[in-house]
Amino acid sequence: MSRIDGRTPEQLRPVTIERGWSKHAEGSVLISFGDTKVFCTASVTEGVPRWRKGSGEGWVTAEYSMLPRSTNTRGDREAVRGKIGGRTHEISRLIGRSLRAVIDYKALGENTIVLDCDVLQADGGTRTAAITGAYVALADAVEWARAKKIVRAGRKPLTGTVSAISVGIVDGAPLLDLCYEEDVRADTDMNVVCTGDGRFVEVQGTAEAEPFDRKELGALLDLATSGCADLAALQTAVLEETLVR
Amino acid sequence: MSRIDGRTPEQLRPVTIERGWSKHAEGSVLISFGDTKVFCTASVTEGVPRWRKGSGEGWVTAEYSMLPRSTNTRGDREAVRGKIGGRTHEISRLIGRSLRAVIDYKALGENTIVLDCDVLQADGGTRTAAITGAYVALADAVEWARAKKIVRAGRKPLTGTVSAISVGIVDGAPLLDLCYEEDVRADTDMNVVCTGDGRFVEVQGTAEAEPFDRKELGALLDLATSGCADLAALQTAVLEETLVR
Amino acid sequence: MSRIDGRTPEQLRPVTIERGWSKHAEGSVLISFGDTKVFCTASVTEGVPRWRKGSGEGWVTAEYSMLPRSTNTRGDREAVRGKIGGRTHEISRLIGRSLRAVIDYKALGENTIVLDCDVLQADGGTRTAAITGAYVALADAVEWARAKKIVRAGRKPLTGTVSAISVGIVDGAPLLDLCYEEDVRADTDMNVVCTGDGRFVEVQGTAEAEPFDRKELGALLDLATSGCADLAALQTAVLEETLVR
Amino acid sequence: MSRIDGRTPEQLRPVTIERGWSKHAEGSVLISFGDTKVFCTASVTEGVPRWRKGSGEGWVTAEYSMLPRSTNTRGDREAVRGKIGGRTHEISRLIGRSLRAVIDYKALGENTIVLDCDVLQADGGTRTAAITGAYVALADAVEWARAKKIVRAGRKPLTGTVSAISVGIVDGAPLLDLCYEEDVRADTDMNVVCTGDGRFVEVQGTAEAEPFDRKELGALLDLATSGCADLAALQTAVLEETLVR
Amino acid sequence: MSRIDGRTPEQLRPVTIERGWSKHAEGSVLISFGDTKVFCTASVTEGVPRWRKGSGEGWVTAEYSMLPRSTNTRGDREAVRGKIGGRTHEISRLIGRSLRAVIDYKALGENTIVLDCDVLQADGGTRTAAITGAYVALADAVEWARAKKIVRAGRKPLTGTVSAISVGIVDGAPLLDLCYEEDVRADTDMNVVCTGDGRFVEVQGTAEAEPFDRKELGALLDLATSGCADLAALQTAVLEETLVR
Amino acid sequence: MSRIDGRTPEQLRPVTIERGWSKHAEGSVLISFGDTKVFCTASVTEGVPRWRKGSGEGWVTAEYSMLPRSTNTRGDREAVRGKIGGRTHEISRLIGRSLRAVIDYKALGENTIVLDCDVLQADGGTRTAAITGAYVALADAVEWARAKKIVRAGRKPLTGTVSAISVGIVDGAPLLDLCYEEDVRADTDMNVVCTGDGRFVEVQGTAEAEPFDRKELGALLDLATSGCADLAALQTAVLEETLVR
Repeated sequence: MSRIDGRTPEQLRPVTIERGWSKHAEGSVLISFGDTKVFCTASVTEGVPRWRKGSGEGWVTAEYSMLPRSTNTRGDREAVRGKIGGRTHEISRLIGRSLRAVIDYKALGENTIVLDCDVLQADGGTRTAAITGAYVALADAVEWARAKKIVRAGRKPLTGTVSAISVGIVDGAPLLDLCYEEDVRADTDMNVVCTGDGRFVEVQGTAEAEPFDRKELGALLDLATSGCADLAALQTAVLEETLVR
Repeated sequence: MSRIDGRTPEQLRPVTIERGWSKHAEGSVLISFGDTKVFCTASVTEGVPRWRKGSGEGWVTAEYSMLPRSTNTRGDREAVRGKIGGRTHEISRLIGRSLRAVIDYKALGENTIVLDCDVLQADGGTRTAAITGAYVALADAVEWARAKKIVRAGRKPLTGTVSAISVGIVDGAPLLDLCYEEDVRADTDMNVVCTGDGRFVEVQGTAEAEPFDRKELGALLDLATSGCADLAALQTAVLEETLVR
Repeated sequence: MSRIDGRTPEQLRPVTIERGWSKHAEGSVLISFGDTKVFCTASVTEGVPRWRKGSGEGWVTAEYSMLPRSTNTRGDREAVRGKIGGRTHEISRLIGRSLRAVIDYKALGENTIVLDCDVLQADGGTRTAAITGAYVALADAVEWARAKKIVRAGRKPLTGTVSAISVGIVDGAPLLDLCYEEDVRADTDMNVVCTGDGRFVEVQGTAEAEPFDRKELGALLDLATSGCADLAALQTAVLEETLVR
Repeated sequence: MSRIDGRTPEQLRPVTIERGWSKHAEGSVLISFGDTKVFCTASVTEGVPRWRKGSGEGWVTAEYSMLPRSTNTRGDREAVRGKIGGRTHEISRLIGRSLRAVIDYKALGENTIVLDCDVLQADGGTRTAAITGAYVALADAVEWARAKKIVRAGRKPLTGTVSAISVGIVDGAPLLDLCYEEDVRADTDMNVVCTGDGRFVEVQGTAEAEPFDRKELGALLDLATSGCADLAALQTAVLEETLVR
Repeated sequence: MSRIDGRTPEQLRPVTIERGWSKHAEGSVLISFGDTKVFCTASVTEGVPRWRKGSGEGWVTAEYSMLPRSTNTRGDREAVRGKIGGRTHEISRLIGRSLRAVIDYKALGENTIVLDCDVLQADGGTRTAAITGAYVALADAVEWARAKKIVRAGRKPLTGTVSAISVGIVDGAPLLDLCYEEDVRADTDMNVVCTGDGRFVEVQGTAEAEPFDRKELGALLDLATSGCADLAALQTAVLEETLVR
Repeated sequence: MSRIDGRTPEQLRPVTIERGWSKHAEGSVLISFGDTKVFCTASVTEGVPRWRKGSGEGWVTAEYSMLPRSTNTRGDREAVRGKIGGRTHEISRLIGRSLRAVIDYKALGENTIVLDCDVLQADGGTRTAAITGAYVALADAVEWARAKKIVRAGRKPLTGTVSAISVGIVDGAPLLDLCYEEDVRADTDMNVVCTGDGRFVEVQGTAEAEPFDRKELGALLDLATSGCADLAALQTAVLEETLVR
């Protein structure tokens, strides 16, 4: 039984990663998971937040946002409403934690990298695309900082790679990389963040309708691990190309 | 090798649930997981939010907050800062989703129940204590609504029970129900929400330091499932006592 | 003619003060005036706000808040609305001023004590219970600071005791310590804060319906002075017991 | 012993009340108590806030604010800070309650009158000048509403007059109508609001330094009652003049 | 004397307009003026704001925002700061007014179109690029609404075209379409919005350093009129192509 | 054809400027353009904002606000709404820029002057009255700073004078200094800020209904230049009088 868009259950949507999309940012990527498009920039600044000063350690954080018309019906701007919603907070924190999982703060030194992930078009999986794209922007920003001697010679602030994918149970079947229409119909929705060596950084599973059992959880983790491995391979391939700034 | 407070790895802290703690609320509970104390109230109002009017279905939502000095050092009040932090948002949403997992909206009818979970004293596991206590307050509120005929005769808005517990890997060992000191030292921290029949409503695992592998994940889920079962038994026992309002 | 709850006009509701209710705070009290229950904590921090630095003097301030379901119908959280209401501001300021009336800033040294007064259940008189309870928490916090040598040996930051009570004219009769139902029906409502030697720190009388004359004011002040004296005696008795932290 | 500005202890500063200061407002007054100048406008709108609809009763409310440079050193605008401070809230509420004390809601009908009291220059006593001036603006607005038949013929929404004055104990002596310099040095500071028949609407006494006793309180109330009587006479005289709109 | 990027004084930067950039929005454009890139979407909703209901007339409004790293150094998100800055407000209002200048509200009927202009990369002239691009998105949205019969047959909501360009005096010379580096060095900076027939909708000239005289103003208006005419021709050409949705 | 109030097209309304209106501010003015009355204060503080420290240069900024009942129907206070509207932001920025056009930052030294422009009564032209009045307050504040040696001897922080006026096209005729009723009916509305030597600091023209052509723009600039010259003469005359503080 094939999916809405003709994919097999364990198939990713077409994924593209364009580096160097911004002339200003130290790292920048336009990533797409099918019709989901996220613009990720990595901004390097020397110095760290006050609570970390004098520690000799750096900091990495992230902010996620959706453009008002990235979705099917226009949403209010959070800046206009004057406050950030719970979902936005949740996802910003998730992206930050995911990227910090592959950062060696000592090697980074007292520098801060902020990842901005702005969703230009949404079709499910915006947070997983954001993490996957932000990693590539982060890697470019780290290289930039090494080239500028902001990171000391011989130091490796990145300890590995990180990518993320969504999985879910739709009509009883475990599926990889849900598009919006599948996401809405899913009984269970799970976002999984893996390092390049196949271990877990985050596992967030939510029963939207029916609770899920241990066997279903296992099937979802199998799918996700495999999807993240494919994304890790793509990240590595993309980063091997020369970036023309 | 015993834990800080002498427990075995698979042992809960002493858990107490006092019902009827408020004379105003339709359901109310003071729950403690060791030194963690959360005050949960369930408030029933007839009617539903605008976006749900005319649907014939009810709504259940939750708000979580920590008193400023519930922690070791005083935190600013979110009301004074003028905005709710990301962590608070995240936990409020988690509690709401967890309780909605055992609600039959149709049976509830166009009524709203708000769960307020205010942490009076924190020592790790505040969100899991909040979910576990809020379920009992919710059950009392549903009974109150049935007695008042706000919920129609014969309808059963509650489809099951729900409880939650934290688990984590500390110094390489999987532990159940982390206290604050253990939580700070944990490599991996996971919150698991189960229904009374042992299925999962939420699984949220985060690698704080080292990523975790599939085997560690399995060990944590085993511990959590067992802990939730014990909590479910306690919830049922407590609810069987007569509540004097 | 007896009152709703059978008290005589000049009778307080049952008052209880439990010290040491928090394991974290330097001073903490759960105080009840009948069904009104307020949780008061005193938090000591070394240092003072910027505008007081270098003065050699300390600072004491207070924040008051009601839990959303402390009242008969649930109120919105001020943190969710994003701003603190006028009533909350007014009472927080009143509590702070009342406690500062018995503080010797020089003796306190450059230390700050914040009193948090959170209403768990409201039935009239929450601000007067808060002041009366906060004094006891403050006294414990000052003792803690002396024991820790944060306050210098031989210094006495507390210059006296302070307590507060409400009085009002209901159906033409002056009454002490109004419960909510009486408060709603009162023509005049007055909150009085006294030091242990019977002098006034604050007198706030408001004509809710009919203006009041000098004779009525006199009768209310007589009642309040007597009520505060009883509370002062209770505070002293409670503080003479040994606090087990 | 004479005062800073040569007044006797029981003497008001020069008080002036100019009516008709705004061409837009239904009632408007520029009032001065010495160098304190407050601009008061009364705005009539048909209809009442939602919670009062269908009651047949009107509503009166007030907003107080200080221009940023009304004081000796410039203060931040509350609009710029994005929130209203506690003192502003407190005074706005006091003005509203004071004026409502002389309003017959039924006679007013379902109409709302908002009093805006903006301090152009401050030299102590801004809240008492605001109440005294706002009463005159309110009286003009009520007349306007009667002339426009917004208030029904024969109805008298105003049940009396209201005025306010500050008193305090400075260097042991009770003084009437404190200017800023006296206010800063006062041991006790009291604001008293009276109706024209000499009864009390509000009594708010605060010990700034030393607590005060019953005898001192009596002396302050004597002064205040006399000062309010003088203000009431002035209000009446001013309102007897014909207002040219 | 040639410019930084080799242009002549009266030369525009390369301008590109890509239609149909979003699969969700009723009209969408990615416009670039050199390195300045703005993403414009037009969202159609049936109905109008409350103050316009029943008028039979539609409404058009705009919101402008810069992504945090659209500039050379990262700026804070306005959503995070909790308020919109003055510059953002000013530009949003300018875009809205400019587009409303070519709208026939009656022909639009009671429908609302919101233009979102999000700057992806900034290099001077973001507001003029936004207006020029938003017009094209608006034209597509109006066509969509006609095709969907949301706008009645035979009605023409658009009365003309509108475009905008910046001009300025740099080192004494009037220049067209300033890039960021020129903008910073300009003595006078002017933004001009024209209709397709060469008349003015907005003229906003500001002396950044030296005041400007009537002759300089004339030279700037000549440049701007010519630049807007070129942009109008491009808009028309782009809109003549078939849009594949 | 005469205007609503009998003026000729090129005639200003009666303009009055009263200096020394505040006893606290270093400069203060009550300015009226007909029924438009704006209270302007200039506050001098030593020191500059953080981003300017150590530059040796001063700073001048402005804040504009309307009292709630300065207009025909009462507007909400921005402090109560918790945010500043776009129009207020826009005008505050315009006033600040206009005054900075005649400031020599070096001569001012590291001092800050804040202009507060509060509209007491509005009848069109509030921003132009504010700029014209604020200049006079600024001049007095600069003199004060020189007298107090805050500005060094021999330095001239003011490089010229600045004034502003509105012009517009009403029923096809260019008019000077529009009152509210004319402003509402205008096809084009323009605010022009000139230095005393007749050059332009700001030109902001907006087509409210019909776009305007080059000839109409010229006629409006002629009117505005003449009006500003009259205002400049008045400013000079007023400043030649001795200010009694």
